[in-house]
Amino acid sequence: MRDVAVIGIGVTQFGELWDHSFRQVGIQAGLEAVYDANLSGSEIDAMYIGNMSSGRFIDQHHIGALIADYSGLASHNVPSTRIEAAGASGSLAFRQGVMAVASGMHDVVVVGGAEKMTDVSDEASNFILNSAADQQWESMMGATFASLHAMIARRFIHEGYATREQIASVAVKNHLHGALNPKAQFQRPIKLDTVLRSPMVADPLTMFDCSPISDGAAAVVLCPLDKAYEYTDNPVKVLGTGQASDTLALYQRGDICSFNATKVATRMALEIADLTVKDVDLVEVHDDYTISELLALEDMGFFARGEAGKAVESGETELTGSIPVNTSGGLKARGNPIGATGVAQIVELVAQLRGDADKRQVKGAQVGMAQSIGGTGSTAVISILGAI
Amino acid sequence: MRDVAVIGIGVTQFGELWDHSFRQVGIQAGLEAVYDANLSGSEIDAMYIGNMSSGRFIDQHHIGALIADYSGLASHNVPSTRIEAAGASGSLAFRQGVMAVASGMHDVVVVGGAEKMTDVSDEASNFILNSAADQQWESMMGATFASLHAMIARRFIHEGYATREQIASVAVKNHLHGALNPKAQFQRPIKLDTVLRSPMVADPLTMFDCSPISDGAAAVVLCPLDKAYEYTDNPVKVLGTGQASDTLALYQRGDICSFNATKVATRMALEIADLTVKDVDLVEVHDDYTISELLALEDMGFFARGEAGKAVESGETELTGSIPVNTSGGLKARGNPIGATGVAQIVELVAQLRGDADKRQVKGAQVGMAQSIGGTGSTAVISILGAI
Repeated sequence: MRDVAVIGIGVTQFGELWDHSFRQVGIQAGLEAVYDANLSGSEIDAMYIGNMSSGRFIDQHHIGALIADYSGLASHNVPSTRIEAAGASGSLAFRQGVMAVASGMHDVVVVGGAEKMTDVSDEASNFILNSAADQQWESMMGATFASLHAMIARRFIHEGYATREQIASVAVKNHLHGALNPKAQFQRPIKLDTVLRSPMVADPLTMFDCSPISDGAAAVVLCPLDKAYEYTDNPVKVLGTGQASDTLALYQRGDICSFNATKVATRMALEIADLTVKDVDLVEVHDDYTISELLALEDMGFFARGEAGKAVESGETELTGSIPVNTSGGLKARGNPIGATGVAQIVELVAQLRGDADKRQVKGAQVGMAQSIGGTGSTAVISILGAI
Repeated sequence: MRDVAVIGIGVTQFGELWDHSFRQVGIQAGLEAVYDANLSGSEIDAMYIGNMSSGRFIDQHHIGALIADYSGLASHNVPSTRIEAAGASGSLAFRQGVMAVASGMHDVVVVGGAEKMTDVSDEASNFILNSAADQQWESMMGATFASLHAMIARRFIHEGYATREQIASVAVKNHLHGALNPKAQFQRPIKLDTVLRSPMVADPLTMFDCSPISDGAAAVVLCPLDKAYEYTDNPVKVLGTGQASDTLALYQRGDICSFNATKVATRMALEIADLTVKDVDLVEVHDDYTISELLALEDMGFFARGEAGKAVESGETELTGSIPVNTSGGLKARGNPIGATGVAQIVELVAQLRGDADKRQVKGAQVGMAQSIGGTGSTAVISILGAI
């Protein structure tokens, strides 16, 4: 397989974008990435679009064709494929795009992720989010996505793997980073007390433990590494990707304090990249809930079991710490337009590895890693990128 | 890229399967394909699932993980990816699966397609089907999927490309074939008068011009050609695939009597296969409406413009004709569980190329071709398979 490079990135403002349609955010991110890659539309060979539920959020299926059309690419009949794996939709679209270039099937591929979540009621969006879990055996029985994560958090605390305060400190750290990201939904630092005293969602998780409902889109452009310098002076190399699944329902797992799919996908990606986690300089993880970040960091091997909470609390995962985590602000502060999230992680890594991350730049960043989750660890996708 | 073979096929009964759940049909087709390939579950490296709208039909997203889980593959953490492109979801999943094997990323890949459409009201299913068209500029303005195809049919007749009777004869021919397929939703031959005198849906298209609402699933197993004989004595080779997009809305096309995406995808697939349509022995096309079959046959180059209707009327596309079309019964008679449709086409081609198609066997079939459409020609996928 051929080596693959990221040659362009684009991301919209994340937030409650009531004055923007799905089509508008999707195209905006794509165009930004295409301009960044110094491409013209006619050079694009294929598109992959990550999206969880345009069918419910905006009553529109078939958004692969929609985005290609509204990007002005219908006249070139560009193949466009939509990928869905709940929260991992965007990262999985990225993995399929990498495969399309690596295989030699296509040369220049645009990977986009988009979601417009605020055009439906909170009730409707909760119903949609719950359909990433097992509708038949979880959601219909009253389990919400937040309550499933609350159960994980309770068990985590019960086992002594982290304190409530350590879990909450994930939100504090990610808001700190979000304050440095002009595209983030929330750009204000918060205190530990803000998290602990905010309204309870599912005990022990409060509002500030949960990622928000968001609109937004992100896009990247891929091409074979050996052609990358024809387009840009600062390509970033895709070092490896991994993907794994697990049971859809949480109750079927042996251990709910760990996501096995993350472990397997991490192993797969590191093996392809021929690296260990010690080689990684920064990580974007899927902090849909604060507790998820601790599981991610331990499952990926950055910390031993029961150590991630302490590390976050002591500042080790801050921008200036030994392993900066979610420099973008993460799903928590940057926002979580579901289909866009996995692609936005890649955008952040590329910005960092190019040295373009401004106030949140990790000094000397050479290798970045992203972890993305669908459901409660039912799908995991890992991507590893490297500066050249 | 590596050569790819189909080593196993499975398909459920298509129809109104009120006593089967989505999970059940999905697994049934998958297991049948895996048994047919003489595989054990632990040998499966990845899955691709085509599905249009489980999110609306059964309130469940994330069905890649669901199907992997219920197939007993969660313990192996098998990567599983859902693909959606409206009516072309299944064929596009097949194309992604082929790419995954061809690239060397995975060895043994199961491609499944499934849809459970009869658990919602007719009103709801119409709403869902219309969301494959442009919700903002077509569906919301009152255009239904049937009415868009009726406009195509009227223009086709107006231009003198076919008569009303020739369009209707597509249904007669496909019901004739469906009667020979024990898995088909409709297994009774019909007469031309049945079509012409059945209730009007959108003038000139009547009920018998339209494919039905269906439940069902289909699956195939892929592996590298050079490993195929380790599993089976009768592998079928994937000779080429193609994919293209066009505007989402029909009104934006220059000519509505032809789908440009079909033309482009056909060219792409034939070029990879190094064949012309004259080498093709049988075709499965996307006859969601009778008129669509005529467009398909002319766009793919089997007949010159205005000739397909005559050919169908004269029996040229029957089982015993010069180019048998939709020997399975097509979407019209076999049924159209949307996500399953594209994979079921591949299942039919493989059965034919193996010589296993019983009463509907095309004698000496060596090369088969499938055409699949999402929306009104907004996505087209072409697959070409060959006997070895």
